[in-house]
Amino acid sequence: MLRPLRLLAFAASLRRDSWNKKLLACAANAARADGADIDHAEFAEFDTPLYNADLQESGGFPPGAQEFARRVVAADGFLLASPEYNFSLPGTLKNLLDWASRMRPMPLRGKHGMLLAASTSLVGGIRGLWQLRIPLEGLGVTLYPDMFALAQAHQAFEPDGRLRGREVEERLRKQLHGYLEMGRRLSS
Amino acid sequence: MLRPLRLLAFAASLRRDSWNKKLLACAANAARADGADIDHAEFAEFDTPLYNADLQESGGFPPGAQEFARRVVAADGFLLASPEYNFSLPGTLKNLLDWASRMRPMPLRGKHGMLLAASTSLVGGIRGLWQLRIPLEGLGVTLYPDMFALAQAHQAFEPDGRLRGREVEERLRKQLHGYLEMGRRLSS
Amino acid sequence: MLRPLRLLAFAASLRRDSWNKKLLACAANAARADGADIDHAEFAEFDTPLYNADLQESGGFPPGAQEFARRVVAADGFLLASPEYNFSLPGTLKNLLDWASRMRPMPLRGKHGMLLAASTSLVGGIRGLWQLRIPLEGLGVTLYPDMFALAQAHQAFEPDGRLRGREVEERLRKQLHGYLEMGRRLSS
Amino acid sequence: MLRPLRLLAFAASLRRDSWNKKLLACAANAARADGADIDHAEFAEFDTPLYNADLQESGGFPPGAQEFARRVVAADGFLLASPEYNFSLPGTLKNLLDWASRMRPMPLRGKHGMLLAASTSLVGGIRGLWQLRIPLEGLGVTLYPDMFALAQAHQAFEPDGRLRGREVEERLRKQLHGYLEMGRRLSS
Repeated sequence: MLRPLRLLAFAASLRRDSWNKKLLACAANAARADGADIDHAEFAEFDTPLYNADLQESGGFPPGAQEFARRVVAADGFLLASPEYNFSLPGTLKNLLDWASRMRPMPLRGKHGMLLAASTSLVGGIRGLWQLRIPLEGLGVTLYPDMFALAQAHQAFEPDGRLRGREVEERLRKQLHGYLEMGRRLSS
Repeated sequence: MLRPLRLLAFAASLRRDSWNKKLLACAANAARADGADIDHAEFAEFDTPLYNADLQESGGFPPGAQEFARRVVAADGFLLASPEYNFSLPGTLKNLLDWASRMRPMPLRGKHGMLLAASTSLVGGIRGLWQLRIPLEGLGVTLYPDMFALAQAHQAFEPDGRLRGREVEERLRKQLHGYLEMGRRLSS
Repeated sequence: MLRPLRLLAFAASLRRDSWNKKLLACAANAARADGADIDHAEFAEFDTPLYNADLQESGGFPPGAQEFARRVVAADGFLLASPEYNFSLPGTLKNLLDWASRMRPMPLRGKHGMLLAASTSLVGGIRGLWQLRIPLEGLGVTLYPDMFALAQAHQAFEPDGRLRGREVEERLRKQLHGYLEMGRRLSS
Repeated sequence: MLRPLRLLAFAASLRRDSWNKKLLACAANAARADGADIDHAEFAEFDTPLYNADLQESGGFPPGAQEFARRVVAADGFLLASPEYNFSLPGTLKNLLDWASRMRPMPLRGKHGMLLAASTSLVGGIRGLWQLRIPLEGLGVTLYPDMFALAQAHQAFEPDGRLRGREVEERLRKQLHGYLEMGRRLSS
């Protein structure tokens, strides 16, 4: 692959001080250092109303869903950090995917991605990511098998935003490298 | 149980001509005929903005989530008909559950429910219901094990809204009866 | 309910020193102290060959599956402690359920149960239990919504087998009591 | 990629007249016609006792698990047709994966695969495949997002074993081609 891999990176959280935003920033930096070209988006840019088929028929797709589609299509794949809400994926993120899934051509089909989660619990949000795989793979996304779950996120960052501890940083770097290698092969 | 079982009944669809609304209406009628007291709600009454923890902290719970909580708390259990979007539950419904899950006391805990789905496909929406069970059970709802999936919904209704065919009507009646029996025991 | 609730209790592990066996023993004791009548079984009593429909047709059901069915039928419900293998339920347990599901009448239908898991990890085996709910509920079992996951099981027991720490013991006792209350209502 | 892609192909069924074996044979033929090198295995070659950690410690890995590992390691990826048992994957297949997951190096890590299912029902076994993805992806397998579900399998084959109907044959051929293209990129 002669050009760098292009990845859309976003965290599926609207709150300002989101652990998933912090984790996503670390992942985006590590991916850049590994040669990827990162389009770092805010979830708020993809703001949509609640999905309603009547709304779609009368008014078409909302600007936030169109912006999401435009950014996905321009990328080879994505880094997505998502909180776990109630043992599953956030309704907000699923609502965006529900809108995007109605577009033709469907923007996610043929893309690849890697999932991450941060959580203040000991479990690290991994159960939510397993539920998130289902609509993404159902929509034709090739997901990197390994997922990065950051437990006890409230103790996991340095004041400057970097991950605390060489071991966890190295784990993220290695996992990202595995995904980037897969992405480069799939997008070449 | 001396008083009738009180059930909140709603379909998780905002569109006007929703197959799930039609199926829910049939289920509500059958439950009434079996002695239940039905509070038939429109999903639009539970309209909420996309979940945002900052919004919750600054502005509290939106009126739609509060209305949902009030109706859930007033009921013993619920009948919930939900479409399947992308092999999972609708983001709209998950977003409502995400709001409700933050309330204290949490309105769904200790309630029971039965899930239904209508779909124009041959599969009938059952995969979405399996994903819907996860947040509901995680929130402490006792779900009736059997679920009612109506396949090929576009051919399943009479012009007056009743289910076409004695067999499918009987299947719904029996399954509802099983749930009502469970509900009466749990709420006595 | 005039008679005590009868529960089959077993841990889905064949190894001798199984954390799930230890946890199951604690749960069985706590359920007895709460008035339940416990049939404590060893998983090895339910030993079956790998499921093969030809084998079933030629030779009928293996003794281990028949024993499982007999014990399930004699009980109102069950306590089941299961390890997590590879983010899902053990193949051994699923194989037993696959045999049992072919019997007519199907022994699990109409029963209720509560799931537990012990694991030496920080996550506690809860992901495996979520996958275990699917075949059990699909087979008509009413599962208590809350599940008991014991993390870091290698540090969780006293030498005499009791759970270490008042807090975790109390959490188990309370959760069991909630299940027993549900079970008594459903089986009355 | 100068050499052909090497795929292990097997159906997770022990019965002689298995719809999944028939479907697997069609898929193996189509993959060969598309240039792949197929190692067609019988599930019975991977026969294992029920997983027991004590057994592993005392006796090592059973011959069936070792044979499975050897064949997986020799391949770039796999075609796996699996029946759905009780809304989930077969216990027999999970038991094999549970054995294989204990081996070091773990034979499945880094492999890729595509899943298929045949069923006599209208649903086609797709729910079982969704549960099968979890342990496979958890073990590091890159799964092709699309899965091939053959509904009403008892009416789906010609007497000579080929799929009945140009449309379904074409659907299988196209989906396989998509997987082979992914596999060639990942294994180059």
